[in-house]
Amino acid sequence: MAERNGALSRRRLFTGGAAIAAAATATSCATAESATPAAGFGSDAEAFHGPHQAGIATAPQAHALLIALDMKPGTREPRDALAAVLKLWTADAARLTQGRPALADTEPELAHRPARLTITVGLGPRAFDLIGLPHRRPDSVTELPSFGTDRLDPRWSGGDLLLQICADDPVVVAHTARVLLKNVRAMTSQRWRQRGFRTARGADGSGVTMRNLMGQVDGTANVRESAELARCVWDDGSRQPWFAGGTVLVLRRIRAELDTWDELDRASKELAVGRRLDTGAPLTGTDEFDEPDLAATENGIPIIPPNSHVALARHRSEDERFLRRAYNYDDTPTGTVSEAGLIFACYQRDPLRQFVPVQRRLAESDALNPWVTTIGSAVFAILPGTGEGGYLGQSLVE
Amino acid sequence: MAERNGALSRRRLFTGGAAIAAAATATSCATAESATPAAGFGSDAEAFHGPHQAGIATAPQAHALLIALDMKPGTREPRDALAAVLKLWTADAARLTQGRPALADTEPELAHRPARLTITVGLGPRAFDLIGLPHRRPDSVTELPSFGTDRLDPRWSGGDLLLQICADDPVVVAHTARVLLKNVRAMTSQRWRQRGFRTARGADGSGVTMRNLMGQVDGTANVRESAELARCVWDDGSRQPWFAGGTVLVLRRIRAELDTWDELDRASKELAVGRRLDTGAPLTGTDEFDEPDLAATENGIPIIPPNSHVALARHRSEDERFLRRAYNYDDTPTGTVSEAGLIFACYQRDPLRQFVPVQRRLAESDALNPWVTTIGSAVFAILPGTGEGGYLGQSLVE
Ligand code: HEM
Ligand code: HEM
Repeated sequence: MAERNGALSRRRLFTGGAAIAAAATATSCATAESATPAAGFGSDAEAFHGPHQAGIATAPQAHALLIALDMKPGTREPRDALAAVLKLWTADAARLTQGRPALADTEPELAHRPARLTITVGLGPRAFDLIGLPHRRPDSVTELPSFGTDRLDPRWSGGDLLLQICADDPVVVAHTARVLLKNVRAMTSQRWRQRGFRTARGADGSGVTMRNLMGQVDGTANVRESAELARCVWDDGSRQPWFAGGTVLVLRRIRAELDTWDELDRASKELAVGRRLDTGAPLTGTDEFDEPDLAATENGIPIIPPNSHVALARHRSEDERFLRRAYNYDDTPTGTVSEAGLIFACYQRDPLRQFVPVQRRLAESDALNPWVTTIGSAVFAILPGTGEGGYLGQSLVE
Repeated sequence: MAERNGALSRRRLFTGGAAIAAAATATSCATAESATPAAGFGSDAEAFHGPHQAGIATAPQAHALLIALDMKPGTREPRDALAAVLKLWTADAARLTQGRPALADTEPELAHRPARLTITVGLGPRAFDLIGLPHRRPDSVTELPSFGTDRLDPRWSGGDLLLQICADDPVVVAHTARVLLKNVRAMTSQRWRQRGFRTARGADGSGVTMRNLMGQVDGTANVRESAELARCVWDDGSRQPWFAGGTVLVLRRIRAELDTWDELDRASKELAVGRRLDTGAPLTGTDEFDEPDLAATENGIPIIPPNSHVALARHRSEDERFLRRAYNYDDTPTGTVSEAGLIFACYQRDPLRQFVPVQRRLAESDALNPWVTTIGSAVFAILPGTGEGGYLGQSLVE
């Protein structure tokens, strides 16, 4: 019944060595049977080194912790201070993501099973001024215009530095955050933290799109192929050579007004989005991945309303496409029943050409607006990836 | 690379139908190969009805949300109000734990995959007075004495009603909390919420004991067998007949002082607990489940120090045994690098005879004390389980 027995009996039903062995060698019974009771997915690792940082095109892990930091004022050599932070984080991330304890890791046992840990580092627009390199800020990394529906709280907005920590295990996320932050506390102060989650890894069958807390299938239409990523997401260095391989994160904290959303009937909820709640299929189709047909009508009335979220959010030119990688949040409410919503993260070459036009249309007339409120906003230059000898941001600060 | 592709490629490595089929039919290749790409562990369900509530002897799920509520003052018939709350929660819990939407579930799609959801309900000592039944309070359900090391914050203490929601999927926890709370908002107000986690399900091999954020293997010595549970945990009705099958939860929120803990060398950390950090084995053994030998000495000095956590926490009589079921917490710190620790939950017949003597010894001289601070405390009568026709607490309120 209790912990140990339960775990042993669960073993019969679930994963462990048998699962992996069976999947890897589905044609060989012998191997599956003789598999040692090996580790679960904890040992899975995402590569750290490469032209781009991991944690963007990476299949979203179940847990995310986003932390914005400000550089402490009064630092005498802010550029050196930033370089020091970036070197420390690179060294630690290169180890932690591969299941090796950080250099000064005081809880090395918490580092052995990275569970697809990724650590992704970004710089806010102001950081370029702070380090005396305003001319090296890509012009794509700039504060967003304001939108009529914004109700921004400074508590969830801005930041000089971003740490995005994602893993399939919340213990890994907690340990990683601690290791990375304690090394840099002399130079930085925390601005905000946002904690997000998706369906636990292994809970659903494979290839299932997540649901958000409004109950919607969320993430169906997205940028996926590497050619699309190259075109829409990864900077090509034409703005600033040092930034080639980087990307720009727009992070929006969007509260879901669940109390009023729950008063809406199902048909109205589906019309607000333009997709079905059960399957996630567009109202013009039957399968989640059917293309929405925005021109289709019934008795002269569009089946997918023109002001539905999907009709408005859909790119009107190839220019407007970006990678979405959202997480749910559910925090402790004060006064209300729920304080929940979406940590909407999207990555692109240039928010002003990609995110902004879409957000403008949504702010103007998205049928979903009565039930979602943007309460935080931030933009970060996600640094290009690094090779083994270098460190994140080296091409900028050196 | 991105979501969908990643999920599809993960399928080869991980779980899904293949895992379950392979585990269930390890001798039949054919079955494993022809398995439909079925669901993951999301469909696993814990029984709701029975002599005891689930969520106590249940193998700990990866995520826990503990919510304390107070009955709103000014209710004219507080006993009826409580009965109404308990009926609503029972009806919803009976459905949600089995993967069926609650009766007025406005996001039914979030209810289909319970991921071993358990919903456990308790009453604080004051609740018996509020409902005019002080004489029916089991004398085991009473506020704890204070301990010298307590630094209790009212923000994390007390409560008339407890909802303990555990599941292997954080989306299930969030949806369940919302459903259960919105039905009772007219009658209750939230006092506190505590969110806890353990290693993600499937990350470790089977039967692995969790680690807390201090890096220790935590949960090795525990009450497990059903005979032990019957003796130490489940009330036998001798105090109050209505309470037979219930138990008493002592919930302590214990902050880990990670900054100073991290300054300690490994040997001192191991001496403070009496167990090794790598394997969790007692300092007198080699395997995690070896019995600690508190009498063993080396050069006349005890190998496990008499003031180590294990030496002091270990039961000195059968009376002192209880079931521990702790979760890690890691919240947003203000000012410090980490606000983390243990949501220490233990279940027993009578805290005054079981928890309190152990906690007294620890408060007096636990070598771990400099690095742990109890900042919250609460006691709840965990109601007996219910059969299909009844509801939780029926034997009390009717
Ligand atoms: C809490 C707020 C939001 C919710 C609940 C939400 C929900 C959804 C849902 C259910 C879909 C359909 C499924 C899918 O293709 O993923 C969708 C699609 C989409 N959303 Fe949102 N969304 C939110 C905010 C935003 C914001 C702020 C933007 C950008 C400004 C955005 C851009 C998109 C895009 C581009 C699509 C794909 C449209 C297509 O190509 O079919 N969403 N969203
Ligand atoms: C943050 C605070 C605490 C930490 C980090 C902690 C950690 C540990 C560790 C690492 C062990 C050894 C492994 C195991 O058997 O589980 C242990 C054992 C134990 N702890 Fe704690 N503990 C804490 C608080 C408490 C409290 C408040 C109590 C009860 C008053 C308690 C009671 C016990 C008991 C009964 C054992 C088993 C001893 C045995 O029979 O060997 N612990 N704890």
